[in-house]
Amino acid sequence: MKDRYLDFVNSPFGTSLARALGLPKPEVLRRHRPGEAEFGAMAAIGAGPSPQMFDQLIRVLTAIGMTGIAHDSAPGWLALAQAEGAMSGRFEPSPADAAATHRVDALIFDATGITESSALRPMYAFFHDAIRSLARSGRIIVLGRAPSSCASPRAATAQRALEGMTRSLGKEARNGVTSNLLYVTGDADIEGALRFFLSPRSAYVSGQVVHIDGPAAAPASYATPLAGTRAVVTGAARGIGASIATVLATQGAIVTGIDIEAARDALDQTMLAIEDTSPSGGAHAALIADIAAPDAPADIAAALLASGGVDIVVHNAGITRDKTIARMTGDMWDSVLEINLLAQERIDDALLAQNVLRAGGRIVAVSSISGIAGNRGQTNYATSKAGVIGRVQSMAPLLRERGITINAVAPGFIETHMTARMPFATREAGRRLNSMGQGGLPVDVAETVAWLASPSCANITGNVVRVCGQSLVGA
Amino acid sequence: MKDRYLDFVNSPFGTSLARALGLPKPEVLRRHRPGEAEFGAMAAIGAGPSPQMFDQLIRVLTAIGMTGIAHDSAPGWLALAQAEGAMSGRFEPSPADAAATHRVDALIFDATGITESSALRPMYAFFHDAIRSLARSGRIIVLGRAPSSCASPRAATAQRALEGMTRSLGKEARNGVTSNLLYVTGDADIEGALRFFLSPRSAYVSGQVVHIDGPAAAPASYATPLAGTRAVVTGAARGIGASIATVLATQGAIVTGIDIEAARDALDQTMLAIEDTSPSGGAHAALIADIAAPDAPADIAAALLASGGVDIVVHNAGITRDKTIARMTGDMWDSVLEINLLAQERIDDALLAQNVLRAGGRIVAVSSISGIAGNRGQTNYATSKAGVIGRVQSMAPLLRERGITINAVAPGFIETHMTARMPFATREAGRRLNSMGQGGLPVDVAETVAWLASPSCANITGNVVRVCGQSLVGA
Repeated sequence: MKDRYLDFVNSPFGTSLARALGLPKPEVLRRHRPGEAEFGAMAAIGAGPSPQMFDQLIRVLTAIGMTGIAHDSAPGWLALAQAEGAMSGRFEPSPADAAATHRVDALIFDATGITESSALRPMYAFFHDAIRSLARSGRIIVLGRAPSSCASPRAATAQRALEGMTRSLGKEARNGVTSNLLYVTGDADIEGALRFFLSPRSAYVSGQVVHIDGPAAAPASYATPLAGTRAVVTGAARGIGASIATVLATQGAIVTGIDIEAARDALDQTMLAIEDTSPSGGAHAALIADIAAPDAPADIAAALLASGGVDIVVHNAGITRDKTIARMTGDMWDSVLEINLLAQERIDDALLAQNVLRAGGRIVAVSSISGIAGNRGQTNYATSKAGVIGRVQSMAPLLRERGITINAVAPGFIETHMTARMPFATREAGRRLNSMGQGGLPVDVAETVAWLASPSCANITGNVVRVCGQSLVGA
Repeated sequence: MKDRYLDFVNSPFGTSLARALGLPKPEVLRRHRPGEAEFGAMAAIGAGPSPQMFDQLIRVLTAIGMTGIAHDSAPGWLALAQAEGAMSGRFEPSPADAAATHRVDALIFDATGITESSALRPMYAFFHDAIRSLARSGRIIVLGRAPSSCASPRAATAQRALEGMTRSLGKEARNGVTSNLLYVTGDADIEGALRFFLSPRSAYVSGQVVHIDGPAAAPASYATPLAGTRAVVTGAARGIGASIATVLATQGAIVTGIDIEAARDALDQTMLAIEDTSPSGGAHAALIADIAAPDAPADIAAALLASGGVDIVVHNAGITRDKTIARMTGDMWDSVLEINLLAQERIDDALLAQNVLRAGGRIVAVSSISGIAGNRGQTNYATSKAGVIGRVQSMAPLLRERGITINAVAPGFIETHMTARMPFATREAGRRLNSMGQGGLPVDVAETVAWLASPSCANITGNVVRVCGQSLVGA
């Protein structure tokens, strides 16, 4: 179902009408397009005392062609940028009463050195001065230290407080602006996360907190970071799964798409379409399997082993069988739990036991906002998707020694055939009750999965990243 | 501002009109009233394999005069109840098409023995069979094991999945039913938590996850569990603070209420009114202090030390100074951070350094849903309230050796003078966007604070308990 309201208020007539009537005007989000510049020109840089990420920030901004211009709160930036030979400058706030003309594409605040809450003041000053200068579909990124890693309660308190700021900014900013918080341990490599959160690939990811801990390898090329990898995606025939398979292939992976017999034609078409656009030139494959069948894990493992194993496993297949608990049949409970949760566990067991999933591999599982917040009529679905979160959090420490990461994405309202069948009011509520004022697209989930599957995410594991436009709904 | 809609649809005429028009009908919640029975007559008991809480459940139900009737999923209950000499029986589900006549007051599911997600099936069966038999303002309680304490990822996954179930049931149940999940470590004493979540005192607490770890002492009397204690409450003159002071006093504490000079008359009136109803007969005191002033921590510590120290500290004082970040002045930032966060830190430092807060003491800090989810126009407030969460989580392990607990309550939409001044649409959204379909009352927050301040909560620390009627809004 097309979002007609979004299209209308962004047409010339609709724009004037919306302005005259004071209607909300959701932004047409800037998304990744091949051939278009991935990053903006300028980022304003702010900082608390003793910022610890400037070296990495300067290096990454230079690598992606952005100039970091320093706010008053970041006096050390200029000297360091000059020493590194990086472009730099001073950020000048627009006067409060002027229509802002000098636009920056991102606001980045380095809070890593903050060890007490009184030192949060420069963060206020930075965003107070700079928010009006942020371009449409701009990016807000706050860098901090995980509260659990802090040396004192005072420091942990101040670092935890960053979450309130980042989430509030996401709700205020509008115009397609995203706001996210990265908790960095030690000198963990943040390039992959910065590239993702600064790019249009994270268009629908906002209000998130991501933990980054440890070293990570840069891919040979950030255009095709998955070159040389093999991936498997369940439920790949249609919708979000098809989009995940496509984006993984576009970024260089050779993809095996799995779906059930009834989706054979759709799966074949999806995999054929991928052939045409894929840079790998590799033999993408369609595999018919009912992942809930007893033999499926062994069959899938055998098929993947025949082509030498796999580097990326995406557990996307999922079903809904909605009814309130009193009306829900046992079959509705069983089938949702089987497909959405138990099949993931059994398949991973098979792939891990035989090292079909190679060392350094990636597991990305699709959870849901329902798994976080619960949902009326979805006791089965929410239980399964909450279980997915438990799986990711509990397996991450065990898989670390093999260099395998496991993360979840939790989609919010994504425009698919499933949401198109919703009653009008439910659909409209889902679309509007988030900071973007619109539903996401399958590609938004797919881009997030591809990012988590990339080599530069070696230091991100056990995370749950919502792809929800900062939905109002949560726990 | 009275909730006129709630009153209307619960009037005889309003009830028929709401039924005819299909309007939502929020329940008049059953709250604690002196002299009324605190607990219902019957609880239906369900369980997964190897339930580990039956002994405690039987003991507590007997103590509070409830009969546990066993669902098919809990075959071991009857024999155990007989061995313990407890009243018991079999739960018989009403036929699906019959208007339910046999009502139970609570549904309690013991999931502590579940170590894999396929074993979640009895949980479905129990709630499927029993949900229609649950009375208005009934209680759903699920007992589980903290995922982080589980021996295997499979067990952690299944235990984490309980959250999806519990939260979904809370959203489905309506009629004033609450649904909460208690993660119990080992054989930690659950009596205090069970009493709270089974009683009308938790009327507006739903969709919560509480961690219970370690032993706890039963108070001499559950009617006045705070007898013999001294408490201090900041911001006690009006609203939530006044209600907290009153409930603490009613439960036996001798209370010092703190507020600013401008609130002197209101504070005096509040403390006088408390005198009249208090069972302690003790000298409640009003203390005028600006908690953000540099001398305040030392002055407050000295005043409390003069009466021998204190057992319960409630950090309730807080202010809002709302503006979007670009329009927010530095003063608005500073004053909110000072009063809502920094003052708490400094006061606790003073009370802890001099042992003014005695060993075995309780700290309860008031956070907010804004601190969890962020809020438009509240970067300052949300930052301060997120910091409160950080404070509670980071200080809990350090205070454990002194037997001091520290927890936070996070109110959602509570009917106060503050919310009465909101624009109509904002107020109505806040009131309705939660599982109770109405705002909470100050006493709902106060009851939760009093519970966390009680001797039976010795094993609950570092928790954040929302008092929000399971608000839709979250992170």
